[in-house]
Amino acid sequence: MENRISTLFGIKYPIIQGGMVWCSGWRLASAVSNAGGLGLLGAGSMYPDVLLEHITKMKAATDKPWGINVPLMYPDIDALMKIIVEQQVKVVFTSAGSPKKWTPYLHEHNITVAHVVSSSKFAQKCEEAGVDAVVAEGFEAGGHNGREETTTMTLIPQVRCAINLPLIAAGGIASGNAMLAAFILGAEGVQMGTCFALSSESSASDAYKQKCCSLNEGDTMLCLKKISPTRMIKNSFYQRVEDAESKGASVDELKEILGRARAKKGIFEGDMEEGTLEIGQIASIIKDVKSAGEIVKEVIDEFNTSAGKLSDYRF
Amino acid sequence: MENRISTLFGIKYPIIQGGMVWCSGWRLASAVSNAGGLGLLGAGSMYPDVLLEHITKMKAATDKPWGINVPLMYPDIDALMKIIVEQQVKVVFTSAGSPKKWTPYLHEHNITVAHVVSSSKFAQKCEEAGVDAVVAEGFEAGGHNGREETTTMTLIPQVRCAINLPLIAAGGIASGNAMLAAFILGAEGVQMGTCFALSSESSASDAYKQKCCSLNEGDTMLCLKKISPTRMIKNSFYQRVEDAESKGASVDELKEILGRARAKKGIFEGDMEEGTLEIGQIASIIKDVKSAGEIVKEVIDEFNTSAGKLSDYRF
Repeated sequence: MENRISTLFGIKYPIIQGGMVWCSGWRLASAVSNAGGLGLLGAGSMYPDVLLEHITKMKAATDKPWGINVPLMYPDIDALMKIIVEQQVKVVFTSAGSPKKWTPYLHEHNITVAHVVSSSKFAQKCEEAGVDAVVAEGFEAGGHNGREETTTMTLIPQVRCAINLPLIAAGGIASGNAMLAAFILGAEGVQMGTCFALSSESSASDAYKQKCCSLNEGDTMLCLKKISPTRMIKNSFYQRVEDAESKGASVDELKEILGRARAKKGIFEGDMEEGTLEIGQIASIIKDVKSAGEIVKEVIDEFNTSAGKLSDYRF
Repeated sequence: MENRISTLFGIKYPIIQGGMVWCSGWRLASAVSNAGGLGLLGAGSMYPDVLLEHITKMKAATDKPWGINVPLMYPDIDALMKIIVEQQVKVVFTSAGSPKKWTPYLHEHNITVAHVVSSSKFAQKCEEAGVDAVVAEGFEAGGHNGREETTTMTLIPQVRCAINLPLIAAGGIASGNAMLAAFILGAEGVQMGTCFALSSESSASDAYKQKCCSLNEGDTMLCLKKISPTRMIKNSFYQRVEDAESKGASVDELKEILGRARAKKGIFEGDMEEGTLEIGQIASIIKDVKSAGEIVKEVIDEFNTSAGKLSDYRF
């Protein structure tokens, strides 16, 4: 089976590995691409020279299609885009900003552009901006998140109605059954972050991976809504944020509590209490670290098996 | 096709109409039951004598299976349960409380018991308490909601793993595709509230139905988390709550703002600005009022059509 997503990116399986800060360097992204999905370097946590190094290693590690996720509020965005064009990168996923400014530039350089949104309204803006595919991400997703809190189950069918572009579902998807459910709701591909963040090729710390693999339902929460809504594990840092928010803390007070570089501290350096441990709700179904290749294979096998059974479903 | 839910309740389609305050009287519940689903009287907004009247009318309106939803924190719960037993009601859905106290009593009187939960932990407590089926309801659902904010997409597969009981999915489900997605995630039935709240047989006010049919994505929000998390439309009352919460309002201050009988004021009496307009996120896909029978038929038709197409899905 092929569809618009697999054709657009030239991949075997319409599985995108979300570009994630401190997790998705060349090791993870090349492993996903070599397994038949689309690996993405997460440029959000890379200085331009670090990105260049990852691009170089990526080219050596795979001859399959791959891309780069670029958060558009990145401070040195011009330098980043220059490298991407010079290195003849073929695919860019943009997020956290308007796709209007950069999509024409990327298209001029023959780069396929997808953009991440959390609402149908923003999906329509993507269509107007001429992007090639949309990732619609629900409330259950880890890390930075939309303000409207629309869940994957309610978001995907609505975005499907709102736009004609190829549609990738994200948020709460870490299994073949969830991928199949997303397809039934209107998606033609899935972006999975959480399960790949916890894969053996992820550059996250072992402490973070082990912590995430031991979570129970309800152990993550969306907070920092006055700054930028972020889903993270309930640790000591989260508890300070929660206490402050409950007492009506201002944006400035929250920024002071947040400080700087907490995602690095938690995810990369392994500080389980003082870092922001960004991860999705679906982490609680993941109990051990697997290779990215195993993850892709298990998801596709379950997708195929479950789809095969459904022909008997008829009331 | 039959399954454990249709067999347990003796219904044609495993579609449960959620028992909702100010919406689900005998007209709605009997219409759903007559259409092949399971209609539920919502006892939460009925004095015992009003419930008795609805039971009497229900018996005259349908010879199909039906039940009653009983929120267990109902102030006059003993009187309610006495009527239910005396009237030989066959099915009770309990919610908002522990199923341990009332399940044995209801079973003694040959009443089938389902209980509504928002987490796997509470689903396991249902199994321990001996209930016959579990409704697992995600964050996107309208009205009173769980504290852990787990969405339907992430909740259903986890509850499926946690218990062996027949499982009904709720939250964000208002179409055959969403029903099919829920089945793939592990459910054997669906409970739909929002779409039936807006049906022609719902006893909600026309103003409320029209308001809900005009919603866009993001027009509901979960608030009142310090008292009891409740999803409602963003109206003037919501805005006051939001402003107070943002400034760190205490439980007492929020209770003062909430006052009394706001659900009745909004849903039943049609005050669109000062009532609590409880409704699910999925309301934004509903654009007009239909009969309960049309809703059931459309959901089942779409479910069958979509399931039939899936045999081609194979990567």
